[in-house]
Amino acid sequence: MSAFRNLQLPSKSFALGRSFFNRTSVLARRNMSTEQKFVQAPHKLLVIPGPIEVTDEVLFANAHPSMSHMSLDFAAVFGDCIRMTRDILYSKDAQPFLIAGSGTLGWDQVSANLVEPGENALVLHTGYFADSFADCLQTYGAKVDQIKAEVGGVVNEADVESALKAKKYKVVTVTHVDTSTAVLSNIKAIAEIVKKVSPETLVVSDAVCAVASEEIQMDAWGIDVVITASQKGLGTPPGLSIVVASQKAIKVFESRSTPVTSYYASWKKWLPIMKSYESNTASYFATPPVNLIYAYHASLTQITTGSVSLQQRFALHQAASRRIKDAAEEIGFRSVPVSEEVRANGMTALYFPEGFVASDIVPRLLKKDVVVAGGLHGAIKEKYFRIGHMGVSVIDPQRGDVDKVINALKETLAEAKASKA
Amino acid sequence: MSAFRNLQLPSKSFALGRSFFNRTSVLARRNMSTEQKFVQAPHKLLVIPGPIEVTDEVLFANAHPSMSHMSLDFAAVFGDCIRMTRDILYSKDAQPFLIAGSGTLGWDQVSANLVEPGENALVLHTGYFADSFADCLQTYGAKVDQIKAEVGGVVNEADVESALKAKKYKVVTVTHVDTSTAVLSNIKAIAEIVKKVSPETLVVSDAVCAVASEEIQMDAWGIDVVITASQKGLGTPPGLSIVVASQKAIKVFESRSTPVTSYYASWKKWLPIMKSYESNTASYFATPPVNLIYAYHASLTQITTGSVSLQQRFALHQAASRRIKDAAEEIGFRSVPVSEEVRANGMTALYFPEGFVASDIVPRLLKKDVVVAGGLHGAIKEKYFRIGHMGVSVIDPQRGDVDKVINALKETLAEAKASKA
Repeated sequence: MSAFRNLQLPSKSFALGRSFFNRTSVLARRNMSTEQKFVQAPHKLLVIPGPIEVTDEVLFANAHPSMSHMSLDFAAVFGDCIRMTRDILYSKDAQPFLIAGSGTLGWDQVSANLVEPGENALVLHTGYFADSFADCLQTYGAKVDQIKAEVGGVVNEADVESALKAKKYKVVTVTHVDTSTAVLSNIKAIAEIVKKVSPETLVVSDAVCAVASEEIQMDAWGIDVVITASQKGLGTPPGLSIVVASQKAIKVFESRSTPVTSYYASWKKWLPIMKSYESNTASYFATPPVNLIYAYHASLTQITTGSVSLQQRFALHQAASRRIKDAAEEIGFRSVPVSEEVRANGMTALYFPEGFVASDIVPRLLKKDVVVAGGLHGAIKEKYFRIGHMGVSVIDPQRGDVDKVINALKETLAEAKASKA
Repeated sequence: MSAFRNLQLPSKSFALGRSFFNRTSVLARRNMSTEQKFVQAPHKLLVIPGPIEVTDEVLFANAHPSMSHMSLDFAAVFGDCIRMTRDILYSKDAQPFLIAGSGTLGWDQVSANLVEPGENALVLHTGYFADSFADCLQTYGAKVDQIKAEVGGVVNEADVESALKAKKYKVVTVTHVDTSTAVLSNIKAIAEIVKKVSPETLVVSDAVCAVASEEIQMDAWGIDVVITASQKGLGTPPGLSIVVASQKAIKVFESRSTPVTSYYASWKKWLPIMKSYESNTASYFATPPVNLIYAYHASLTQITTGSVSLQQRFALHQAASRRIKDAAEEIGFRSVPVSEEVRANGMTALYFPEGFVASDIVPRLLKKDVVVAGGLHGAIKEKYFRIGHMGVSVIDPQRGDVDKVINALKETLAEAKASKA
């Protein structure tokens, strides 16, 4: 893959300070390779659907000494990040945008750059995040239609086909994994329908909770925009908006007839910057989140060059997901997604068993140092909770994170039952 | 100050991991307080006008283990950051917005929330950043007039008064310190003129390169919006957009007659979130840059509770600035700002002496491990360079950063002269 050619290894850039070496020299002599390693502080296990647990190497990179965003050293690291982002999506030539911001900023990028005021957008609704994406599109002047799935389900593909035949849409948006319901949409099948019925329509995937935990073949499947962020499957602290646009999407952007309707999210500003950094030269529009780019680089390096291949990574997410869902259902929890094939592999949403509420379960898990997330989907908010299982927690079995989650769930429910007995 | 009441001290939250303690126990017994300290890697001295050198404590906080953005622990830290941000601006009740993004996002916030399409904005132009702010305002539909200063100068106050008398402006924008020229505008005097001539007009200060290096009395001087970012005087890695709005500005925002024209930058979305975090309760619109908030908290704690008071901090910036400017001018460099009173205290912009160009000076400084910035202002881009002197580099004399910069400048010019002899 292209990224491997020009790789800066963490071991080179992230060496600890000389003064530190001197002070630990006695110990360092005993075991040079491990004694100098930065080890993050002990903490509760974070298994919400993002931010997720990240490796010591990633956190250490986030503590990189200050660097000029205009330096050659930093430009090479940024360039690597662009190339490795593309690699993770199996894309040859799509254009990544790495911008300081949260995942939400990706919606603004799509709404302000690809949809002109008055144009139609079709939003496939599988939960909370579709409402928000629709709100964002409307803010920038799009006319939005939604196809809504039942809670825990995905939209009917025949409905998508009918909608596309009835009206011309500039974009169709799909939430690949809806973080509010843990529902997995079949983005490949939807992209196929769009290509068949309305090939000019751009397929936009909100993949914030899917990238690096679900397989995404951007080029092969014909996805035009993948929106994500640093803090989920990509295993990096939050603060980086990551959007990848196909060359078809870039052409649509370049042939706009009206001006872009955002300044900070404008690809007119960012496209030359990203091209410049990819050629390992710095260029300025707004200061990038330098330390976070180093952290992202460390994580991308682990993902793309580690001992676990991308395909193995997806398989490990599937296996962990199955273990957690099976264990939870065995003791009386029920998955929010309505069927096996619409269940995400990087997170789980579980209804509390009959007679139990959030305050019976979530605080008990917290006492066992397991941090999960509450409900988010308005219609069922109080009836369920969410567990994230992405990145190092499922890739590195020695951590025992999945076991810890399963055991904590079992103990918690037993205690909750006992307290009501 | 309000922030001190509810303070989480770094020593408590940022303790190193247990496994680390075990391994260093022999040394730890010798000197418990210093041996456990995280020390950043040796690196070139970064003296560009942002990002700046940051302390070990700030970098260590940036390597905080992953935390839920919805946790009580994190909410308290976020709440502290809001309160301490207000304290640094000597404001009693202004509203901070802390959002993942670069300083540029602050312009979008002003343009999308405070200026409705078709309304007038007056931009006082002292360099590169006024052009960009004007561009941003126009993107969101504002009608922009500019008053342009000569390169290195500030706008004529009488011209501001005339402009305000001739037309009704929703906002006047001032670049407090223009990072492209190191020109310091008299924001206090301009705010006075606005209050006198057009009291309804909001005074917006682009203070990205001024906050925490120049005194800003937000309430007393009547500034309505202060735009800044984490990576300059505030001594934190880049990636956090910081905007502080007066209650008057918030009222103007709340009485808009048209919808806000951005989604990610919308105060309608962020205001409830900021209020929630300030009451130490988490609330969700978009995932905050959690680690960077911990880093910002560490830096704000050092700034507001360290041994150096805020007033001393400003005095130290003035003293360092004078030393660097005097030393540079003594050997033949000339300041870009045209007079003593318009020189910023956190940075210096210097014309190369007659007969010398960037390639004579900047690479030689780099060889001495001193990283400066090239020119940015289009009209003089090749004729000058920029030095940043903010934060810990000027606050902690033991680092010797200012001496290092001055010595490197002297040696560099001597070498450059010798090479031409």
